[in-house]
Amino acid sequence: MPTEPVARTIHHHSHHHGWNNAFQPILTVAPGSVITLETIDASGGQLTLDSHADDVARLDLDRVNPVTGPIYIDGAEPGDALSVKFLNFAPSGWGWTANIPGFGLLCDQFPAAALHLWRYDATNFAPALYGPGGRVPLKPFAGTVGVAPAEPGQHSIVPPRQVGGNLDIRDLAAGTDLLLPVEVPGALFSIGDTHAAQGDGEICGTAIESPMTVTVRLDLIKQAAPPAPRFATPGPVSRHLDDMGYEVTTGVGPDLFQGARDAVSAMIDLLSARYKMQPVEAYMLCSVCADLRISEIINRPNWVVSLYFPRLVLA
Amino acid sequence: MPTEPVARTIHHHSHHHGWNNAFQPILTVAPGSVITLETIDASGGQLTLDSHADDVARLDLDRVNPVTGPIYIDGAEPGDALSVKFLNFAPSGWGWTANIPGFGLLCDQFPAAALHLWRYDATNFAPALYGPGGRVPLKPFAGTVGVAPAEPGQHSIVPPRQVGGNLDIRDLAAGTDLLLPVEVPGALFSIGDTHAAQGDGEICGTAIESPMTVTVRLDLIKQAAPPAPRFATPGPVSRHLDDMGYEVTTGVGPDLFQGARDAVSAMIDLLSARYKMQPVEAYMLCSVCADLRISEIINRPNWVVSLYFPRLVLA
Repeated sequence: MPTEPVARTIHHHSHHHGWNNAFQPILTVAPGSVITLETIDASGGQLTLDSHADDVARLDLDRVNPVTGPIYIDGAEPGDALSVKFLNFAPSGWGWTANIPGFGLLCDQFPAAALHLWRYDATNFAPALYGPGGRVPLKPFAGTVGVAPAEPGQHSIVPPRQVGGNLDIRDLAAGTDLLLPVEVPGALFSIGDTHAAQGDGEICGTAIESPMTVTVRLDLIKQAAPPAPRFATPGPVSRHLDDMGYEVTTGVGPDLFQGARDAVSAMIDLLSARYKMQPVEAYMLCSVCADLRISEIINRPNWVVSLYFPRLVLA
Repeated sequence: MPTEPVARTIHHHSHHHGWNNAFQPILTVAPGSVITLETIDASGGQLTLDSHADDVARLDLDRVNPVTGPIYIDGAEPGDALSVKFLNFAPSGWGWTANIPGFGLLCDQFPAAALHLWRYDATNFAPALYGPGGRVPLKPFAGTVGVAPAEPGQHSIVPPRQVGGNLDIRDLAAGTDLLLPVEVPGALFSIGDTHAAQGDGEICGTAIESPMTVTVRLDLIKQAAPPAPRFATPGPVSRHLDDMGYEVTTGVGPDLFQGARDAVSAMIDLLSARYKMQPVEAYMLCSVCADLRISEIINRPNWVVSLYFPRLVLA
């Protein structure tokens, strides 16, 4: 059993599909260890810079969202908190955003597959050019990060859970400290689904999906499991895109989900009309840079959901 | 009929309760007019700096949330957009935050009335001291701003609608340009429920409720009614409070409303434990400064709602 923290690198071939606490760990480390993990993109390598929309329609969904791991943290027990400090993201310089049929907030309105390919500067994170119009500021993070659930058996990778997983929280970026509740001995930590940029909501279902190398420090806080993932950011979270303010659309009504749909639909109409974009292009652009916020949730029976689109993207 | 824009001041005695397109306008102005309106606080003057929690429990709810107006905008017709440019907020220097029994996201957990009174610097907007701990950066805005609905009769002031009303969107602040859909001739614009600070969600049901004098420019865009309120901010919206980053709790599950409740409950537990606050104090503090965001809304069946609490408030 390891007793001293180590620094190790895990290659992307050490990945798994779905969550299962019977998966054998690929590595056992002591708390305090710094681990560098290579990730595969969320298509599991099915999409490349040579892909087209047809390839999106043909995706084998059993192969999506692989995660690198699992790592056994020595001494981790149910009831502990696993602390995941995101130290560094080294992105690959390419990515994709897709409208996958049947997936996404407005999947009923956008049934056809669509694909946008991105090339970006992996060294200085300059905003990435969006072909139909716009430049998207980048902020790399891990869309999927979690530990194994206590419940035995195989669990889909798609829904996030109290133990984390496919959280798609855009502020799980460099410098952030994430706490996850440990449910099984060793925690069994895995990570993947790295994104170069995403707005709150991940509206169309995909971000700038981009393989990366991620460095984290894994630590334990004994008997301090939060009820669900909790994190702290070291500084502001939106300054890479808020300089010019926001265009904001709203959805007003008794259901937050429908409110979000209404706000997104209104923004797609606005962007399509003003910038002569195809609606699906506006939808995918919102997914990578616009934020869904709950403006009020107390004036019964109508709540307000707002979509904040950063103006500098299309300035 | 006025044909030239004017500058006028409306005193707070010219207010009404609820929305009704039969209310007689107190003033008719031409598009482009700049209007200064005094507002009353959301209790309708029932709460003052001498009030106690008992007074909250005794509130006459028929008198809450008065709005100043209505103003008839000459030439406004159904299908037009009314443009409301927020030019200035001159706050009063005092306010209140209450837990009103039966009202608020966690009203089942907090059945007892509570009241916090605030005094703040109305000239330089220095952060306002929170007695139980913390300093809250201020950003004055109008919680209720709207036009009369087409549907005849008296409508409650509480729920917001497509024509606006009790939106409680914290970025309807100085410099923001709001578009509202006009449903009746003259639009019949009213405003009130001014807040010195509020987080996204207005979690406990009240903000820093504070009477103010608001100056707006009212303009028309013919036949450009948005489907619901829409706005543009001239610059960043969170820089008054994001310097030190955020503590963030999450709620993960298939219902966004419950997700928001879970995220808020987790934050109350965190603040209560770390800063030795009473839970209701933490709840009211979250309402005035913490933001509810939808982190992901596409990984069926589980969505993630996150509550962002700005760390500088308790630094």
